[in-house]
Amino acid sequence: MVVNRRIVFNQVKATGLPEPGVTTRPEQTEIDLDNVALNGGVLVRNVAASLDPTMRNRMKGGVYFTPNYVKDEPILCIGISEVLRSELDAYKPGDLIFIWSQPLEEYSVLPRQLVEQAGRKMDVPTNGLSITTYLGAAGMAGMTAYMSIKEIIGDRLQPGTTMFVTGAAGAVGQLVVQIARQAGVKVIASAGSDDKCRFLREELGCEAVFNYKTADPFEELKKFGGERGIDFYFDNVGGTQLEAYIEHSAKYGIIVACGYISGYNADKPEDIVYPKNLFKVVTRELTYRGFIVSSFIQKHLASFLAEIPQMIADGKIKVKEDVTFGVLGAEDAFLRLFTGDNEGKVAVLIDVDHADKWNLGERKKTAKVWQ
Amino acid sequence: MVVNRRIVFNQVKATGLPEPGVTTRPEQTEIDLDNVALNGGVLVRNVAASLDPTMRNRMKGGVYFTPNYVKDEPILCIGISEVLRSELDAYKPGDLIFIWSQPLEEYSVLPRQLVEQAGRKMDVPTNGLSITTYLGAAGMAGMTAYMSIKEIIGDRLQPGTTMFVTGAAGAVGQLVVQIARQAGVKVIASAGSDDKCRFLREELGCEAVFNYKTADPFEELKKFGGERGIDFYFDNVGGTQLEAYIEHSAKYGIIVACGYISGYNADKPEDIVYPKNLFKVVTRELTYRGFIVSSFIQKHLASFLAEIPQMIADGKIKVKEDVTFGVLGAEDAFLRLFTGDNEGKVAVLIDVDHADKWNLGERKKTAKVWQ
Repeated sequence: MVVNRRIVFNQVKATGLPEPGVTTRPEQTEIDLDNVALNGGVLVRNVAASLDPTMRNRMKGGVYFTPNYVKDEPILCIGISEVLRSELDAYKPGDLIFIWSQPLEEYSVLPRQLVEQAGRKMDVPTNGLSITTYLGAAGMAGMTAYMSIKEIIGDRLQPGTTMFVTGAAGAVGQLVVQIARQAGVKVIASAGSDDKCRFLREELGCEAVFNYKTADPFEELKKFGGERGIDFYFDNVGGTQLEAYIEHSAKYGIIVACGYISGYNADKPEDIVYPKNLFKVVTRELTYRGFIVSSFIQKHLASFLAEIPQMIADGKIKVKEDVTFGVLGAEDAFLRLFTGDNEGKVAVLIDVDHADKWNLGERKKTAKVWQ
Repeated sequence: MVVNRRIVFNQVKATGLPEPGVTTRPEQTEIDLDNVALNGGVLVRNVAASLDPTMRNRMKGGVYFTPNYVKDEPILCIGISEVLRSELDAYKPGDLIFIWSQPLEEYSVLPRQLVEQAGRKMDVPTNGLSITTYLGAAGMAGMTAYMSIKEIIGDRLQPGTTMFVTGAAGAVGQLVVQIARQAGVKVIASAGSDDKCRFLREELGCEAVFNYKTADPFEELKKFGGERGIDFYFDNVGGTQLEAYIEHSAKYGIIVACGYISGYNADKPEDIVYPKNLFKVVTRELTYRGFIVSSFIQKHLASFLAEIPQMIADGKIKVKEDVTFGVLGAEDAFLRLFTGDNEGKVAVLIDVDHADKWNLGERKKTAKVWQ
């Protein structure tokens, strides 16, 4: 028997921030790796997990497009797992599975159906990228940025156009900014701290940046967009910044709607801000289009994998990651997504004992390890 | 000298309904048809004018995408005019001009630049359609319906899909309903009176109808859309009905945003309703797209003119028109657009003396003539 640490869902919290120990709680169980029944599935060591803002919506007890978390069961993430034992022909020990619904724990038995429907075999990276990058810039966050821009903005992404990006220092935002910059687009970006703003301007090449907690987005976008207005808006947050974009959009502007983070933790529904200028959607002939990456993976996965990971390995795309070492640190890390204290993509290295293998050995040396 | 009756803009009214005699006022002037200077332009007898909800926005003193009306000058409409004298090579007496900016009066001198930029020569109809139909179903309203569906819904307009249409008994809505029905789309429509609802169900073949003044749009759309939700929404009005559609939209739903009439006459900006469920734009991956017909006329005009007028002449598309006889009736007619007392497309036959020529002789016999 070995120890199996995990984070389980504890109780519904419909409003406000998630609360470690209340919304979720840590737990320590045991598992017999040699004898646990697989029932046709696979036994995996969970290597790393991605923590995403959208997970918050599965803790609220309402109706969401993915199912609510189950009390006393591990919360579910997008993650990468390593096969230890397998009753599936497609997988053998040592294989990596990229899985959409990974229990946040050290070891899991994954049912055959889950692996077949929500898993994808992936190669162990040989390009020097850390495993967590495959959960961020080279994974779901990168795909979200890359595929939504391809699908919704398409050929209009041209040198000399302009784009506003919110949540720009976050997992998806960073990639959006860099994909836009490489296409010659001028970017104005917002983030929740002056440090992040500096990163966006100095390292990612944004023309303009502002801290949304202290600056007035209407003023900033007006200054940047001028008479003509701003062509595109990559919207991770909704609310006031969405309203500000609509106000200062260019004719035929496009809003890529990837999230509404400003509303996820409101204390009361009335506190959520919704734009009061939708008539401009008509008069400016704007396109406001929602996007969930799962709808487009099949269409764009090959071109994504051919382009983006190599660009990261070559340093053409920079990546900032907030990696937590040890599954027990996941609650704190998840909270950082909403306080804005994270620095880039938030991920957890669960398999801390093999940090070197996952190209995170150097970073582990200076990091806190939760065990 | 002959009498030249007209409706001029009198004073800004930012909120509430337009008010005949206050927002606008009737006026009687004179014009010397033989000697008035043309300065390179044309002298026209204005035949007919279209009255459209969007005109209300030019009376508010704010910033709109078309210029505000000028005090003591005739208000401007989309209209059809007949050339009496011309200093333009392209026009000779008797020619008809379809013009985007026609002064609401009996006779006008139109400058060369206006005619060249905002005019289009049209043939005198020989298919039996009334001249006002060329301002409605065979004109701008028809183009708006036809082109926006082509451009925004496109190939997804298929048998078995579902559509919600607001302002469905109005100029644009009627056409939308019929274009959708002919494509095999099931339509739920709303309008502001039980009579209009009956017309929509019995004459235009809507599967479901409701009176938005008495019914709950959330309930009606839920019942119609069921678990799957409704595929498309043709939005003339915004507000509560827009919110209700978003709530009961199908995955990948499309909103064709052509107007926000529910907001045009609000007493206070706070009275205008904006949807509080935009997060569903993300999770359902909706497309919400504004449309102004002028952006697409060049692209789709030929196919429109080849298809729609003949379908109307053949009775395949039914048309309901609210024609006022005489320019002095225009103020009342304009108000009807917002009280919902209009019956279909609101237009004014200005040239009442030649009603027969414009295929409105029969209707004139039973109509009030404003003179």
